[in-house]
Formats: sequence, C-alpha cells, structure tokens
Amino acid sequence: MTITGENFVAGERRGSAGTWHAHAAASGEPFGEAFAAAGAGDVADACAAAASAQPVYAALPLSERAAFLRLVAEKIDELGATLTQRAMKETGLPEARLNGERGRTVGQLRLFADEVENGAWQQLRIDHADPARTPPKPDLRLRMVPLGPVAVFGASNFPLAFSVAGGDTASAFAAGCCVVVKGHPAHPGTSELVAGAITEAVAEAGLPGGVFSLLGGTEHTLGETLVTDPRIAAVGFTGSRGGGLALMRHAAARAVPIPVYAEMSSVNPVTLMPARLEEAAEDLARAYVGSLSLGAGQFCTNPGIVLAVESDALTRFLIAAKDALADVGGQTMLTTGIHKAYTEGAERLAARSGAELVGLGGEAPGTCGRAQVYSVSADAFLADEDFEEEVFGPASIVVRCADLDQVAAVLSGMEGQLTTTLHMAEADHEAAAALLPVLEKLAGRIIANGWPTGVDVTHAMVHGGPFPATSDGRTTSVGTLAIERFLRPVSYQDMPEALLPGALHDGASGTLRRIDGTYET
Amino acid sequence: MTITGENFVAGERRGSAGTWHAHAAASGEPFGEAFAAAGAGDVADACAAAASAQPVYAALPLSERAAFLRLVAEKIDELGATLTQRAMKETGLPEARLNGERGRTVGQLRLFADEVENGAWQQLRIDHADPARTPPKPDLRLRMVPLGPVAVFGASNFPLAFSVAGGDTASAFAAGCCVVVKGHPAHPGTSELVAGAITEAVAEAGLPGGVFSLLGGTEHTLGETLVTDPRIAAVGFTGSRGGGLALMRHAAARAVPIPVYAEMSSVNPVTLMPARLEEAAEDLARAYVGSLSLGAGQFCTNPGIVLAVESDALTRFLIAAKDALADVGGQTMLTTGIHKAYTEGAERLAARSGAELVGLGGEAPGTCGRAQVYSVSADAFLADEDFEEEVFGPASIVVRCADLDQVAAVLSGMEGQLTTTLHMAEADHEAAAALLPVLEKLAGRIIANGWPTGVDVTHAMVHGGPFPATSDGRTTSVGTLAIERFLRPVSYQDMPEALLPGALHDGASGTLRRIDGTYET
Repeated sequence: MTITGENFVAGERRGSAGTWHAHAAASGEPFGEAFAAAGAGDVADACAAAASAQPVYAALPLSERAAFLRLVAEKIDELGATLTQRAMKETGLPEARLNGERGRTVGQLRLFADEVENGAWQQLRIDHADPARTPPKPDLRLRMVPLGPVAVFGASNFPLAFSVAGGDTASAFAAGCCVVVKGHPAHPGTSELVAGAITEAVAEAGLPGGVFSLLGGTEHTLGETLVTDPRIAAVGFTGSRGGGLALMRHAAARAVPIPVYAEMSSVNPVTLMPARLEEAAEDLARAYVGSLSLGAGQFCTNPGIVLAVESDALTRFLIAAKDALADVGGQTMLTTGIHKAYTEGAERLAARSGAELVGLGGEAPGTCGRAQVYSVSADAFLADEDFEEEVFGPASIVVRCADLDQVAAVLSGMEGQLTTTLHMAEADHEAAAALLPVLEKLAGRIIANGWPTGVDVTHAMVHGGPFPATSDGRTTSVGTLAIERFLRPVSYQDMPEALLPGALHDGASGTLRRIDGTYET
Repeated sequence: MTITGENFVAGERRGSAGTWHAHAAASGEPFGEAFAAAGAGDVADACAAAASAQPVYAALPLSERAAFLRLVAEKIDELGATLTQRAMKETGLPEARLNGERGRTVGQLRLFADEVENGAWQQLRIDHADPARTPPKPDLRLRMVPLGPVAVFGASNFPLAFSVAGGDTASAFAAGCCVVVKGHPAHPGTSELVAGAITEAVAEAGLPGGVFSLLGGTEHTLGETLVTDPRIAAVGFTGSRGGGLALMRHAAARAVPIPVYAEMSSVNPVTLMPARLEEAAEDLARAYVGSLSLGAGQFCTNPGIVLAVESDALTRFLIAAKDALADVGGQTMLTTGIHKAYTEGAERLAARSGAELVGLGGEAPGTCGRAQVYSVSADAFLADEDFEEEVFGPASIVVRCADLDQVAAVLSGMEGQLTTTLHMAEADHEAAAALLPVLEKLAGRIIANGWPTGVDVTHAMVHGGPFPATSDGRTTSVGTLAIERFLRPVSYQDMPEALLPGALHDGASGTLRRIDGTYET
C-alpha cells in the first residue's frame, strides 16, 4: 500500500496538495510525502456519509458485523513490515514493541468480533404482559442500540492500539457505530496505512463507505469542527488533559450535548506496604525502574508516584532505585514536542520545594528522554498540589510518609487515577484491607504486587477511572466493557413480533437474556 | 407523624424559624406550618454526613441493603391516609391516584430490593491468570461500585413516585449510594412525611444518619449549592428543561464534573398509521383525549403531538376528538405556577401560524387546566420549530401530513423524546417497519397501539431518551436498569482472595457472573 498523504472520506481518498509532513521521531526532521490537511468540508462530508451509513451498518446481522471486524484485523495483519517500518520511523518506538502492538490491535478487533457475536451487551430483557393485573401490564422488551457516528481521536503513544483502528474504533464498530477518526499528526503515514486497510475491509464487506473516514491535519480547529458536527453522537479520545477538557467543553456546548470518553492523565500511585518493602526493597526498586522507563515512560499507566513509610527499607529501596536508574539508557521519545514537554516538566518537578533527586538514568541525547526519580516528604507533597501533575515520560517521585495513616491521607487527597497499586506481603493484608475503600474511590484498577504498565485487553479490564483520569469514570476504554460507551437502551411496548428485532422474539436463543427478571443463557 | 417544617440533616430534624409555606393546589392559598429554608450550612452538613456514611453504607452486605429498602417501603406504607390527605391538599391530585402512586412508590422500593439481591448489576467478571502466556496474563476481576453520594431533586408531578423516596432515591440506595434530596416546594409536607419514614428506617437499620437527608426551600441557589458540593457524585432530576439545563451547567463547571440524570421534557409523538386510523378513528380519538387529559395532562409522557396522513379518516378522528373533549372537565393543576405556565403555553400554541382549534374541554375555573387540541399542517409545523415546545398540561396538537414520507420527515426532524407511539393495523406493518429506525433514534420507548401515559416499573422499561428528553440518553430513570446510573467499574488485578470482595471469590455462587468470557448463573 502506497502512502499518498490523502485523507479518507467515506471510502474515497481525497486531498489536494499536501501542506504538512510526518517527522522522524529520532531527528525531529520532516520526511516523505506531504499530507493534505482536512478542512471543514471534509469533516462535513465524512459526517454526512457516516450518518447516512449508520442505519445500514447498525442493521447488519451481528454475524456480519463480527465478520467485518475480523476482516479489518486481517487487512491490518497484511500490512506487515510496511506498517512496522513506517511506525518505527514516525514514533521512535522499537520494532518488537510495534509488532507486539500490532498483535494487540488485531487481537482487540477479534476479541470485539467475538463480543459482538456473544451479544450479551445488548442487555436483552423481556417482561411479558399480564392483562389480568390492575392496571394491565404491557409487554416490554428492551435492547441496546448504537448511539450513532463516533468521532475517534488517535493517541500519540500507541500508534496502532489506541489510534486509527485502536480500542475506541474497535468498540464503536462493535457497538454498531460508524467512525470518523481524527488522526494524530505524530504518525500520519501509519494512520494512512491502517485507514487504507479499514477502507478495503469496508468495501470488501459491501458496506457503505461512510462506515469509516480518516481526517488528518495539524490545526486544533479540525477536532473542534468534528466534535461539534451535529451528526456526531459520541467522542473517544486518548491524550492530554488540556485536549480532553477542550473536547468536553465543545461537546457540552453543542445544541445537543454528547458524551465524551476522554482518557487524559494519571500518575498511578503505587504504595509499598511496610512488610513487603522490608522483605524485597531491592527487587521492588529494580522492577519500579523497569516499569517507569518502559517505552520511555510514555504509558498512561506509568508509575509516576510511589508511596512508602519512612524506614531503613525505604532507604534501601531508594539506593537500589538509583543503581537501577544508572543502567537505563535514554530512549527516543515520540515527538520533539513530547520530549520538550517532558524535559520542562521534569525540570519543574526537580525544582519543587522539598523534591530531592534520587537518581538519574544515563545521558539522553537528542530527542531521548532521561529517566529520573525524586523523593519528597509527604508533608511537602501535601503542601504543593502540583506534585500531582503528570510528567509524561520516565520521571517519577517517591513520597516518604510518616506512617500508614499519612499514606492513606495522601491517597485520599489525590485526584482520580487510572490505576493504583499495592505491594504487600501477607503481614500487610490487614492494613491493605483498610486502604481498599480509599483505592476503590481513587482508581479504576487496583493492582496487587505488580506494576501498572501493561493493560490486558480482556473482559474484566478497566482502563478508566474517576475524573481527571478520564472524563467519565463510569466507563473503560480497554476491554470488552468498552462497548457499553456507545449504546443506549430502547424499550418496545406491545410491539407485534413481526416488527420486533429477532433477538427479542420469544423463541430466540443463544444469547444471554433476562426474561421476566430471570437471566437465561 | 407530625409535620414540623424542619429539614432532615443526617438523621436529625433541623430548622430555625420557618419562612415559607405549603400552598393548597386548589386555591393557591398558603396553609399550615411554616417551613425552614435550608441554607448553605445545611447543605454542607448533609453532604459531609453523606460522604462519611458512604463507605459504611456501600460496604453493607447486599441482603442488608435490600432489607433497608424494604424497611423504607414499610415505613411509607405505615404513613397511610396521613400521607394521602396531605398530598391531596398540596398537589390537587385525587385520592385514588395518590393511593396508586404510593403503591407504585413502595412497589418500586421492593423491586429494587429484589434487584439488589439479584446482584447481576454488579457485572461480576473474572478472567483467570495464564502465567504461560507471553506476556503472562494477570488475574483480573471486575465489579461495579457505587459512585458516591447522590443529589436527588423531587419532581412536582409525582409527589411520591418521583420525589423524596421515588425512583431516583430508590435506585441510588440500591446502587449503594447515600442520598441528599432537595425537596420540591410544591409539596413540602408530603416530602417531610416521607423523609421522616426514611429517617426512621435508617435509624432502625442501624445505619449512619448521613445515608439520607432532605433539604427544602424555595430559592434556586439551594439546588446549585447542592450540585456544586464536592462530595456529591451524581444528580437525579425530573422537571423542566430550564431547571435540568441549569443543573447540567453547574455540574459541568465543577472542578470535578459529575453526571446529571435529568428527565426534562417530551412531547411524545404518536403516529396514527392509515389502515388503523381508517378502521378505528373514533376509538382512537376517545383514547387520545383520555390520555392527554389524564392527571390534568401533567405527565412527562403526555401525548403532545399526534401525526397522521390527511384523509377522511383523519377528519373523523378530529370530529370525534372534539366530541370527547367536550366531556372533559377542568382538573386542578399542581401549582398556580404550573397553571399559569400552562395557560400561557396553550395561548402561544393557539396563536401560532397555522394552528387550528380542534376542540376544547369544559370550562376550567380557578387553578384548573382546560383541555384543548389543535391541528396544523405538516408544512406549517415544519416552518415553526416552536410547535415542538412542550406545553405541560392537557394540550396537544395534531399534525396533518401529506403522506407517510412527510410523517417520516416530521419525526426525523424532531428533538429527542421519552416515548413515541405507533397505532397500526396489520396492513400498516410494512410502512411501520420502515419507520422503526427513525423511531429508535428518536425515543427511549416505542409503544405499539397504546398511549404513552403509564410507565411500568419493571426490568425492560426505558423512561429516558435522547437529549433534550433527558440529559443523558444512555440511561433510564424508571425500571431496574436505572441502578446503572450510579455505578462505575473497578478491576482488581492479581488481588489475593483475602482482600477481594466475596462476590469475586472463585467459589461464590448464586449471582450471574462472567467467568473467562462465559456467563454463568
């Protein structure tokens, strides 16, 4: 597949002269073909096509919807090394990581295909009539229907798994929604390749082109125009807090407000409980440094804050962390903008009152990020709320607490998070149990004896959490539960069977349904 | 139980000198004891108590949470005639209606008690670990947890079923959330009686007082203060569009935005399909007038707009509607304010370009509302979007369409609705099937051959719909699915069993769970 620099509007490549370029992450230099900037007309055409395709796509039998998702996965797999090589150059991420991420992306599409066929997400409910009741009880049958066309914003840090064909797109397609993607300008060639694969799948499946569009550009107005288009019914976004908050404002100010699912920022507090710290300070320190420097620290679930009680064991932990850091080489960051923001954020962190340097990674030339860890007393941490600010990259801070009550006080005062982690030995269980209500309020995922980086795509995953980790803590953007974001319930009252969806016929089977209050599989 | 005019803050009656009064709906005259106006200090105390009670209430075993809901129902039942008599005077609603509404209210509490015990709403999911996978697959277990304290705004038109112990309160309690109610000033004595019953139940169940508070007053600032309190995690509201939009704005402007579930306005379009109209014009007209004048038209699901194709049958329908209207007496409206707004709204409707009077109900003296029906051509309707404005009361308009395509065009252009209805004979099915995708996009409930008034409290009910019918079309405020509004998912990764909620232990049983992707009952 050749990269042309064009947008995809409802199955057609479209673009006049290109005006902007991809940049090599390693050098920051522009390279390759020029990309067309999508304008308001492109947005309007993509949204109109999506609205027109929406009832057709929503009405597909679920088996065909699932087949379409599998076909998208197949087409992306077929891109093979072309995709990996392009993504490497654009993002600076290593080959193994990108191959793994492609596997995750197609695996996610196939998981959602299975989920579509499972069908339980339709929440099928039947309450039979009872004409003898006073007043007579009507026949009521409920199912979930798609919200309508979804705008998806590609993320910079997962150029495949959270981008054009990432989790938002896969779950929106699974829910029966057409998708208009606003591609991330940090990987336009990668985006175009994936969009080409989806567009081929749409055509081969015989679906209307409006099922999918990709619009690219570097101006913020593009996203605003997309989110405020009246035909868009919901928004999926992974990125900065500023970007997410702006989309929330635009969506709330529409004549018809729409839901925004923005996954924004998180410092993922990790608590080292005393008995576990005592028995494994050095092992914990090495694993910590491994987690915080993974992928140059550019994960939403990076462990940005560690909490522990002041002790000899904590001193051992900090010394071992310093040693481990010395072995961490600089890694190319995703973009020069991210590198600059990281460098500045880390400088602000270092300069905060009470911050003490624990250790530094090796020199990080060019656009590489230098790993670094600081520590601070809980008193100083509590005195300056900016310590909670996410520094996107391999920087982290250890908060030294006087006792477990102060650990609880720090955690209770923190903003909403994607994850929070407890390292504990059995002797810590009682104290951990007391902390759990605080942690359940704080985050969408609570990890025991692990590290937050690594987000499994499965049924019981929650990659979400209270604001400002996300715009809407009632949801997850990873895992099969993500499909619920793009659905709404409709109830049919006394509807003749001939007009009811097949899944709501009395005789239908094979899907979890709730009949007169009882779940039946 | 004696009415004292005090507020309930976390189990204690509280109020200095009363400053405002209940008004008799029939006369508009103030009567009885003076009520205390809750101030900012009362709001802060109620919210602080709710936040403090929240982890205690959330941690109750589900059997005890269910028992608490049943105890609330029992206490309300015990209020008996005292409650009905007070509500009659405050609202003007007849005795039979209020007794029925009390039955609905306690039935709703008991249904939610059963739902709590059913437990499927917890969405329990277990994905077992697979250490052999590359990378190793963690053990993940998911459940829904309560959002936190919920602010509930009592509605004027259902002084029991959508007020202090109504659907919002019942579903929030069921979800494990503490509740702070802002009572509707149209029925303060009714509210106090019900709040007293809940407060007794809280005390008898041995729960902290913060589980429930009732705050009353007549100033808009009370609601704003409540919704912007940082301890409030969600809002339930039934009322006017203006009121709901204001709460949405306040909630979105908070440092931590929270979900608002506002059920606001709907004109509930009813379509009379040609074959059915031909065979039953007169019967349909009589049932229509019965539905639109029920309870003085003060239902959220009142049939405010009827659509039909111009025909002799439609003329017969309009003549029969006129005849039926002549037999409708004036009925006391809920408040003098609602009566005034109805009278003015009906006058505006009558004066709109193209509106033709079909018929009037009997004279309506004092605070009674006079039933009235108009008709308008679809062309005129489409030319003036204000025809869609809800006139809260027994007024309705019949839209005369040129053909079924124009019916579809009118429905496609309408705002989101709570309900939409199709009257059809078998000969209409093919045309009805073509309309269904439009109706599914338009409303939360699609009724066949019935009338929208009457909302069954059951599993498959949806009392919700796209904006502006509600603030959030992904939900329902009636029926067991309403519990989902007050929950968010939490995932536990590799958590030792000793620290996991019991429902997520491997051996737990009796509740629907999804284990490694498969649903098990």
